[in-house]
Amino acid sequence: MDAAALWQRYQDWLYYDEALRLYVDVSRIRFDDAFVAQMEPRFAKAFKDMEALEAGAIANPDENRMVGHYWLRDPDLAPNDELKRDIVDTLVNIEQFASQIRTGTLYPPGQERFTDILSIGIGGSALGPEFVAQALGPDFPPLDIHFIDNTDPEGIDRTLAQLGDRLKTTLVIVISKSGGTPETRNGMLEVQHRFGEMKIDFSKQAVAITGIDSNLDQLAKSEGWLARFPMFDWVGGRTSELSAVGLLPAALQGIDIRSILGGAKEMDARTRVPDLRNNPAALLALAWYHAGNGQGEKDMVILPYKDSLLLFSRYLQQLVMESLGKEKDLDGNVVYQGIAVYGNKGSTDQHAYVQQLRDGVPSFFVTFIEVLKDREGPSVELEPGVTAGDYLNGFLLGTRQALFDNQRDSITITIPEVNAHFVGVLIALYERAVGFYASLVNINAYHQPGVEAGKKAAANILKLQLQVVQAVQKSGQPMSLSELAKATGSMGEIETIYKIVRHLHFNQRGLAIQGDPGDPQGLKVEAL
Amino acid sequence: MDAAALWQRYQDWLYYDEALRLYVDVSRIRFDDAFVAQMEPRFAKAFKDMEALEAGAIANPDENRMVGHYWLRDPDLAPNDELKRDIVDTLVNIEQFASQIRTGTLYPPGQERFTDILSIGIGGSALGPEFVAQALGPDFPPLDIHFIDNTDPEGIDRTLAQLGDRLKTTLVIVISKSGGTPETRNGMLEVQHRFGEMKIDFSKQAVAITGIDSNLDQLAKSEGWLARFPMFDWVGGRTSELSAVGLLPAALQGIDIRSILGGAKEMDARTRVPDLRNNPAALLALAWYHAGNGQGEKDMVILPYKDSLLLFSRYLQQLVMESLGKEKDLDGNVVYQGIAVYGNKGSTDQHAYVQQLRDGVPSFFVTFIEVLKDREGPSVELEPGVTAGDYLNGFLLGTRQALFDNQRDSITITIPEVNAHFVGVLIALYERAVGFYASLVNINAYHQPGVEAGKKAAANILKLQLQVVQAVQKSGQPMSLSELAKATGSMGEIETIYKIVRHLHFNQRGLAIQGDPGDPQGLKVEAL
Repeated sequence: MDAAALWQRYQDWLYYDEALRLYVDVSRIRFDDAFVAQMEPRFAKAFKDMEALEAGAIANPDENRMVGHYWLRDPDLAPNDELKRDIVDTLVNIEQFASQIRTGTLYPPGQERFTDILSIGIGGSALGPEFVAQALGPDFPPLDIHFIDNTDPEGIDRTLAQLGDRLKTTLVIVISKSGGTPETRNGMLEVQHRFGEMKIDFSKQAVAITGIDSNLDQLAKSEGWLARFPMFDWVGGRTSELSAVGLLPAALQGIDIRSILGGAKEMDARTRVPDLRNNPAALLALAWYHAGNGQGEKDMVILPYKDSLLLFSRYLQQLVMESLGKEKDLDGNVVYQGIAVYGNKGSTDQHAYVQQLRDGVPSFFVTFIEVLKDREGPSVELEPGVTAGDYLNGFLLGTRQALFDNQRDSITITIPEVNAHFVGVLIALYERAVGFYASLVNINAYHQPGVEAGKKAAANILKLQLQVVQAVQKSGQPMSLSELAKATGSMGEIETIYKIVRHLHFNQRGLAIQGDPGDPQGLKVEAL
Repeated sequence: MDAAALWQRYQDWLYYDEALRLYVDVSRIRFDDAFVAQMEPRFAKAFKDMEALEAGAIANPDENRMVGHYWLRDPDLAPNDELKRDIVDTLVNIEQFASQIRTGTLYPPGQERFTDILSIGIGGSALGPEFVAQALGPDFPPLDIHFIDNTDPEGIDRTLAQLGDRLKTTLVIVISKSGGTPETRNGMLEVQHRFGEMKIDFSKQAVAITGIDSNLDQLAKSEGWLARFPMFDWVGGRTSELSAVGLLPAALQGIDIRSILGGAKEMDARTRVPDLRNNPAALLALAWYHAGNGQGEKDMVILPYKDSLLLFSRYLQQLVMESLGKEKDLDGNVVYQGIAVYGNKGSTDQHAYVQQLRDGVPSFFVTFIEVLKDREGPSVELEPGVTAGDYLNGFLLGTRQALFDNQRDSITITIPEVNAHFVGVLIALYERAVGFYASLVNINAYHQPGVEAGKKAAANILKLQLQVVQAVQKSGQPMSLSELAKATGSMGEIETIYKIVRHLHFNQRGLAIQGDPGDPQGLKVEAL
């Protein structure tokens, strides 16, 4: 395609909304008119699916749930008055609570005010808040936020060490929809333990964000925690950033949560338009489908040219991969769907893996995110007529061009600046694009059976661990791994037993191994 | 394969070195004996290539350079006494300088001591130091480290705002091998500008790490910077963590750099063994080759179950993708090689994209990194007999098992703990594995033509920007994009011109656009 034709294609396909001030450019994805024509009926279906979902259909059949994260930013759309009131009231409660904390009306026992937030959550209860804190957190927020997003003891220790004595003025937010996520429960118990050691009252500084009447909700209620906020049944973890999960931490940091909601609401309206060419989320879904042949054959590389958007790719990893990475379609056929997502930021990544993107294995398409505003206030010129921001822009344009010239496709999303409004816009854009894509490939985007299976697998291993420790203690003499397998009725699990005892041995937890760790067959295990 | 056979396969292929206390398990990569036999002659060649490289051969023919990062941790192996002395002297200088800074013997003008480090570098001059700071930085380091690793004005502003008045006690390290990396130069100029505004003397707080006699080296010399440390010609950016690039920041943070070097030296010795089954780096290369069919058909997902190793995957993205992502092999054939790398940490990622890994598109293999030690000191039991660390271990084992059962292959690397020694071990392990894999697929792992091309592409865009601004200013009246393209002799570049003027307009930089930004054809551009 010559330069003039390419320029025409760019203009033909450019999505720009004047009120929203957002551009989506899919012209560098090499689909042709025949492909678009072929996709039109599928999009007609996707638009219908979306309409039904927004009207309160059971869009998540496996879990028999409605999918209502769209209502969070436009409560008038909620299917009944009760839901609407829940949304509106929760938002007001969040704002009031955050204001009371920030102004010191609510304060920790014996202290003047809260200084820090410790957010304990994982997956959808961490990735959104982490992304937004990095993207929008002011240089000097009213409260500094910290995260425990794993069950790594050393990670927990480090966070608590860095908080140190400030734990006395730390607001602890425990976030778990089910109230039973093990990593989150573990983090909470470890933090409670530290509170106990420091003789401070956890309940006076603790907030729960969880499903109504979940275990966590009941615990918080019975212990009289400082506050409780609901996670609605009809909001999934990975689309919960605009529920209390994301809004409370954001409000506590002084971020304008009404603007985030407003941006998302505006984008939701744009992506309701049942017209492929005039719907930015549909354009993304079209581009993804073409790039990966509707089967995830290409990875989605996310390259925002802005430091503050560094964590957007991690946020999208969950949103896209957990939504689309499914074994079966809605008719029960095995399809192994999904799109792999990775990326950090430009131009930093140009000095890392863009070498491979330009020259190497063509297993990806890129999404550039361009931010027009360089910074608050004027820039110094670093050489005549050129600023640091011009370089950033130059690197983006040069890389996009070079990739295209070498048959590597890309999408470019352009926003005027990174602020609360546009973070809402981006979140809503991708939520809807994922929904459309799921319709195109006929999968349920709103369940996560593999995550549940992972929890069960871990539970089985912990059960085996307890059996192994019991067997060793009962035996009274050194046992081989085979003997242990036999004693626990787990002959098929010798390798797992080996790994369990190695881990316990290393942490001096009730048993010790003798022999050469590189020769598992010859090892003996005894009680400590 | 039944459980007994799988357990036998595990033991047959388990690499364990008693002195090193490291395990590498490739048994869950589904190669068979025939594949191994077929690869043996290729490994024989790879071992020979490695020997030649270590003896000082020109292993990077495009740049006519030796590849000597192995000498950094064992200077006795350097091909001549001069190189050996350079390495040894630099290390001593780093230690002395870091000690003088930490103890306050060297201090900023009018201040008691340095409190912070601001490291300015990108790619190989940032990813290693960032990874090591997160992995090994103490809870309360003698100096806090901050990074500028991009040319984003807002990112620079945020870092400088957070440093605030402490800039007066900040040691600025500027890292660029060539001395001409634009992002790094821009960061340096922006920081110098801020020093000027604050009326503090940059040169008294600045350190250069750069190639001898590079532009940066000459600048630092002429301005009398506090110190200069060399980047050797025979160390590439992505293998420079164990040169001054990584060692100086680490030493300033109180990290034991001799242990990092020691760990790498030990691993280098193990990976010199010309025997596939007894060489952990060769085993990794074998596994990578099998997983991706020698053509990078599968992504490498890196899942360390330890918060402190979060940035290891970003470090490896560069090491693996910039080394292996090449258009041509050493004979000039177009091969489009590479392996895509991504990942964050377990079990956090199990609540993000592991849903897709388990159930979705099978476009990857996983490398689990298992750390045996849970934490310093004992753990509380969160339920009878079970700690947070047991959960972490359980999630790892459960996920590995579930992936394998669903035909998804994985490697497991096990280390006793995350400390300086084992960070050296891991870095050296992957450096060598990349070297072996490059031999297997016959490419130059030590150049990066795409990165150079990216710099040139950006330079061309900045040149066009200057021409556009000149043309607008000269014209004296509004110009269309076509007129601008004609005036600058760039008819093939209208789209780039559109993007350039949009960026300049938005930052009030000498010109403004009139019209509907969504209709580029109709826009007019005029001087501000």
